[in-house]
Amino acid sequence: MKRDIKAIVKQMTLEEKAGMCSGEDFWHLKSVERLGIPSVMVSDGPHGLRKQDQEADHLGANDSIKAVCFPTACATACSFDRDLLYKLGETLGDECQAQNLSVILGPAVNIKRSPLCGRNFEYFSEDPYLASEMAGAHIKGVQSKNIGTSIKHFAANNQEYRRMSCSSEIDERTFREIYLGAFETAIKEGKPDTVMCSYNKINGEFASENHKLLTEILRDEWGFEGYVMSDWGAVNERVKGLKAGLDLEMPGSGGYTDAEIVSAVKDGTLEESVLDTAVERILNIIFKYTDNRQEGRFDLEADHQIAKKIAEESMVLLKNDGILPLKAGEQKIAFIGKFAEKPRFQGGGSSHINSFKVESVLDAVKAYTEVAYAQGYDVKEDKIDEAMVKEAVETAKNADVAVIFAGLPDAFESEGYDREHMGMPDCQNYLIQEILKVQKSVVVVLHNGSPVEMPWADDVSAILEAYLCGQAVGAAEADILFGKVNPSGKLAETIPYHLEDNPSYLNFPGDGQKVEYKEGVFVGYRYYDMKKMPVRYPFGYGLSYTTFEYSDLQLSKEKIKDTETLQVSVKVKNTGKMAGKEVVQLYVSDKTNAVMRPVNELKNFVKVELQPQEEKTVTMELNKRSFAWYNTKVNDWYAGSGTYEILIGSSSRDIRLTKTVELESTMKIPMEIHTNTTISELMENEKAKEVMKDLVDQMMANIGGGEEGSAASEAISQEMMIKMMENSPLRALRSFAGISTEEVQELIKKLKEAVK
Amino acid sequence: MKRDIKAIVKQMTLEEKAGMCSGEDFWHLKSVERLGIPSVMVSDGPHGLRKQDQEADHLGANDSIKAVCFPTACATACSFDRDLLYKLGETLGDECQAQNLSVILGPAVNIKRSPLCGRNFEYFSEDPYLASEMAGAHIKGVQSKNIGTSIKHFAANNQEYRRMSCSSEIDERTFREIYLGAFETAIKEGKPDTVMCSYNKINGEFASENHKLLTEILRDEWGFEGYVMSDWGAVNERVKGLKAGLDLEMPGSGGYTDAEIVSAVKDGTLEESVLDTAVERILNIIFKYTDNRQEGRFDLEADHQIAKKIAEESMVLLKNDGILPLKAGEQKIAFIGKFAEKPRFQGGGSSHINSFKVESVLDAVKAYTEVAYAQGYDVKEDKIDEAMVKEAVETAKNADVAVIFAGLPDAFESEGYDREHMGMPDCQNYLIQEILKVQKSVVVVLHNGSPVEMPWADDVSAILEAYLCGQAVGAAEADILFGKVNPSGKLAETIPYHLEDNPSYLNFPGDGQKVEYKEGVFVGYRYYDMKKMPVRYPFGYGLSYTTFEYSDLQLSKEKIKDTETLQVSVKVKNTGKMAGKEVVQLYVSDKTNAVMRPVNELKNFVKVELQPQEEKTVTMELNKRSFAWYNTKVNDWYAGSGTYEILIGSSSRDIRLTKTVELESTMKIPMEIHTNTTISELMENEKAKEVMKDLVDQMMANIGGGEEGSAASEAISQEMMIKMMENSPLRALRSFAGISTEEVQELIKKLKEAVK
Repeated sequence: MKRDIKAIVKQMTLEEKAGMCSGEDFWHLKSVERLGIPSVMVSDGPHGLRKQDQEADHLGANDSIKAVCFPTACATACSFDRDLLYKLGETLGDECQAQNLSVILGPAVNIKRSPLCGRNFEYFSEDPYLASEMAGAHIKGVQSKNIGTSIKHFAANNQEYRRMSCSSEIDERTFREIYLGAFETAIKEGKPDTVMCSYNKINGEFASENHKLLTEILRDEWGFEGYVMSDWGAVNERVKGLKAGLDLEMPGSGGYTDAEIVSAVKDGTLEESVLDTAVERILNIIFKYTDNRQEGRFDLEADHQIAKKIAEESMVLLKNDGILPLKAGEQKIAFIGKFAEKPRFQGGGSSHINSFKVESVLDAVKAYTEVAYAQGYDVKEDKIDEAMVKEAVETAKNADVAVIFAGLPDAFESEGYDREHMGMPDCQNYLIQEILKVQKSVVVVLHNGSPVEMPWADDVSAILEAYLCGQAVGAAEADILFGKVNPSGKLAETIPYHLEDNPSYLNFPGDGQKVEYKEGVFVGYRYYDMKKMPVRYPFGYGLSYTTFEYSDLQLSKEKIKDTETLQVSVKVKNTGKMAGKEVVQLYVSDKTNAVMRPVNELKNFVKVELQPQEEKTVTMELNKRSFAWYNTKVNDWYAGSGTYEILIGSSSRDIRLTKTVELESTMKIPMEIHTNTTISELMENEKAKEVMKDLVDQMMANIGGGEEGSAASEAISQEMMIKMMENSPLRALRSFAGISTEEVQELIKKLKEAVK
Repeated sequence: MKRDIKAIVKQMTLEEKAGMCSGEDFWHLKSVERLGIPSVMVSDGPHGLRKQDQEADHLGANDSIKAVCFPTACATACSFDRDLLYKLGETLGDECQAQNLSVILGPAVNIKRSPLCGRNFEYFSEDPYLASEMAGAHIKGVQSKNIGTSIKHFAANNQEYRRMSCSSEIDERTFREIYLGAFETAIKEGKPDTVMCSYNKINGEFASENHKLLTEILRDEWGFEGYVMSDWGAVNERVKGLKAGLDLEMPGSGGYTDAEIVSAVKDGTLEESVLDTAVERILNIIFKYTDNRQEGRFDLEADHQIAKKIAEESMVLLKNDGILPLKAGEQKIAFIGKFAEKPRFQGGGSSHINSFKVESVLDAVKAYTEVAYAQGYDVKEDKIDEAMVKEAVETAKNADVAVIFAGLPDAFESEGYDREHMGMPDCQNYLIQEILKVQKSVVVVLHNGSPVEMPWADDVSAILEAYLCGQAVGAAEADILFGKVNPSGKLAETIPYHLEDNPSYLNFPGDGQKVEYKEGVFVGYRYYDMKKMPVRYPFGYGLSYTTFEYSDLQLSKEKIKDTETLQVSVKVKNTGKMAGKEVVQLYVSDKTNAVMRPVNELKNFVKVELQPQEEKTVTMELNKRSFAWYNTKVNDWYAGSGTYEILIGSSSRDIRLTKTVELESTMKIPMEIHTNTTISELMENEKAKEVMKDLVDQMMANIGGGEEGSAASEAISQEMMIKMMENSPLRALRSFAGISTEEVQELIKKLKEAVK
């Protein structure tokens, strides 16, 4: 049934239409019974259902329904597995159908600008390509079940501090390449039903009132056709927001802002057609859901197994001197740390799931062997309890291997506020150091939503980064620790040595009014690589229990136009003894020198499973965008003509194979010529160069710089004279070439004609 | 005789007045004989006279007169000795009087933002306080002889690349604290007769047309009373420049721009009074010179000795494992490197002096001992000459100690273009590495205008940084190497390990149109300290042949108002066996947390000479400015109330003593209150807090977060609720505190009243 939405809108009263543009309550949209418009429900996500059935509230004073908590985005991004994210989406979609939820909020793709952002655990990556690919797969998965998604938080919401009032100050190129970059492909390809605008301002304008963002970029450029909803409470001026493209305000305002819309239409300050369009968009999505209901599935136990599978694919083995996998039955094993018993597997705030069950590693390990256990530390406050430490040290000492389950307690990271530092609790670092004094075989398993400083990293035998891996975390950990599962996660973000190393360090979180993104496009590995800084573990890094060899990198062409695509293939072989998965990463490096760009940027990846000694050829595609940067001269993506390196790596700092491709741009960048255009700029343009030739030759002939060996020739070398001439603007020709101001004007006219 | 300048201006024709505002030629101002206005000459500086007597030209195709080349600013800044700079100034002043030069251009105080700036050798420091103190002393010294100075290049000219057209994009606070900071005290206290505006644009406006810079800041705020001249060729639009406050265009335009001024007055687009004021300013300085002629002194040999003395005080001993001082007669010594024979002691460009003689260290060493010598490398091109290297290695091998004189050849740094990298020539690094293979006692003496990477630093026994130390460089080097002079220079800039470490690295030199100063106030040590980065040698660092002990730090008060001064005294004792000088450095650290500030900032220093076992008490003063930062909310310097640390150090990273002082601000920062003011901002203001008290108490009471142990209480902790409330703007009270929009407006009214 194809409904005539426009016809329905026509039948609505002004008040009904205004009412449609805000929630009925915290979780429901309004109904208009006389026109058959039902009230639909939306729910927090994105790693499970936070459906609040009872007295609904956003702040969660009341429990949501019992549900499955899947791994959070900080973990799933490390899978580098689009299919896995699609599967997660499908599962959520099934659950929503079963629970009659029309939209599940998320995924959240905000870039991890600083490890301190309290909400990093809900976000994917420091890399926009990876974030957008993961989000796109998530969206497609959910929406394959006719459930809507709401990609969020649009945009540049990269901290919690003053998130409702602070302005993110970003230059256009950085905004496009990095912060919008995380949204763009996911929205263009994933086609989410809704987009959620963020709380913050962007360059002084609230996201919720930002016409450029919500209309010009989102709809006009990217072709988004769904509706935009506000983050809960993000509306500032409702009518301005509506005009900017914010269709739905959530939660409802008790009718207050509906009335504002009504009077704005009545007094002529808001065109009714703007309101009609918003209502149309909202009704489209409502009926898309209600007209396409599917059979749902809310099988908690089955979905728990999916959560476990995702966790297995997401954990990252950071270090292993050979101690892992553990040998059940052959080793006396001690498990240390509260998180072994009661794991931290999700973060606080609107994404928090009321898990129907939680598998701890202390339970899961029973399938393998008996272990000794000591709590070691408390999570309620960061205080060293010497008795607890002593017990843990004794337990560790009496074992062959000590596995310490550590990480960040709830209070250390949450929606709503940022972390104060990048450290783990002192009591945990102390515990690890004390255990290292008596036990040289130490494995650390980390539970955290964002990188931690690891002062003990060089001293322990192995580190497994579990991030916040959902309610099946313990089962997945046990399977990885004992080698039933071969770890295959790769870091979706750099782990720096210290917080001070982070590119945003000098500008985070700003002064409360503004936060300046002065590091520009140099976020994450783009910064560390450019600055040649050592890092604890680089982007894309992660170990396996087997080894992989790369060979035979092939490009489909040696030269391409920017309108063509390039196929890149490479052979990968499992050269070890265990089946495993490798994430093959493709980075592109711009060698054209057209503009300051990151050393390498991730432009494709593929995860491949290989049996021992098995070899596969994987193929990845690159297009113009893979080579391009956002050129503000033309306000468009631009890949300059010249050489680009194609790098295949096992991590951003473990490049195995490299080839180059020559690209030819079909775009013409217009050249501006005025009295302050420099000679060197002109010499870079073939046509301008032709015009300038005689004059430059004459100036070059004049450059002598005094007799060889004279003081004058020492003072002003020929090199200096040439560089000074090159750096001179046309206006300076009067001094340097002895031509008149009129002649300069004549020359400019000629040049403009030539470069047209 | 007090002349009535206004009366003279009144008698001048419009054409004469316009003519007065540009040069007659490259070096002379125009005369008006009928009114007794003489033509005066100006000369390049600032480390010697570059008087071009013959056919004058700025680019130096013709030799200037034989003169004395004193150490360049990059060296003299390391003296940290105001008296020494005054002495240099006096000497230059005497020479100018003898040579009938009315103004000697300089000093140049531009901040060393990047080691790559080709002109860094002419500049003092990365620190604005040090730069301004050195410049102020130089100015006072020159002007004590009734010769004018021209502090330059005003302002934000921190690179050579596209210097005539590029715009330096700087935020106001950074501009004030760092880039203008280097000028401000020197201009206020030194009262230079003239200021030279720079070539570049600042935030889009040419310095030569920048009313804010040349009039509002320079004259209205700082009280400058002299005239502003253009850098040679810096004029873009002449009339706009005149209106902005650019009085004198140099060199002359052949009458072209004079005519523009005349027609602008005639057609009413330029008020004649603006022209009159400019002419008055120029005439004031001309007659100040001609009416106060003194006896000059141009004693080349005597001034050569002054150049040597300054060089001795300026060189910085970077490393010494005990090998220095060398022992004449007891050791077989080899001198290696072309710079031993033909030192590099100044840079190329407009500051280049036609030295009447040059003392090489190979000559100077004869007073101590015989040395073996090998050239080792060529300076004309960076090419390894194996025969030369072999000879040098043999020479070094046969000695007890090898002293390698190395550094940057002329082509590596110069006015007019920037360095391409921070490395020394490959052929020199190779030479040092090869010598280290056969000789473990290696001393490196460096000749360079800006830091170089030193891959061999850990392997050599000693490093003496001579910078570009003037024509007596060799004599000073010999005296320091053999211990006749105890080195006392301290680095006026950080020497980083690698170029990539530099704070401007990601934004230098920009795209040709703009260069963005995104590192903000975090320039030099302000950046390295904040980022806790290791550096090769820190700001303020330098070794001595003796040792100094610090004790008994005293502050005159424990609490001060920002209107008061603070006296800081400390005892310093020479605890070694040789007389020596120590630079006692005072850094201030803001602990008020009012704004992101550098960890420490240099706010005073004193150089003290001490005999073995001698102890002196040195006293330094601090005032409001020593504690203040530039607050753009009030467009003024502001030192917030709270605690400040006073740190006494032998370098920026060798702090010996610390005390704290409590400062009370007498400034009131007005508080803006609107719908987006956050609760936490209000709670920081005592009066607003009072108004908010009941409401906040009520909200706090509402914060429960569900029952202990419930899923809801895990999801939203009390901590999160409180932080969310604090971060909430007033407009959000509708959602969070259940009050109406009208009530919010009422509340804002009350709050505004309260904080008035």
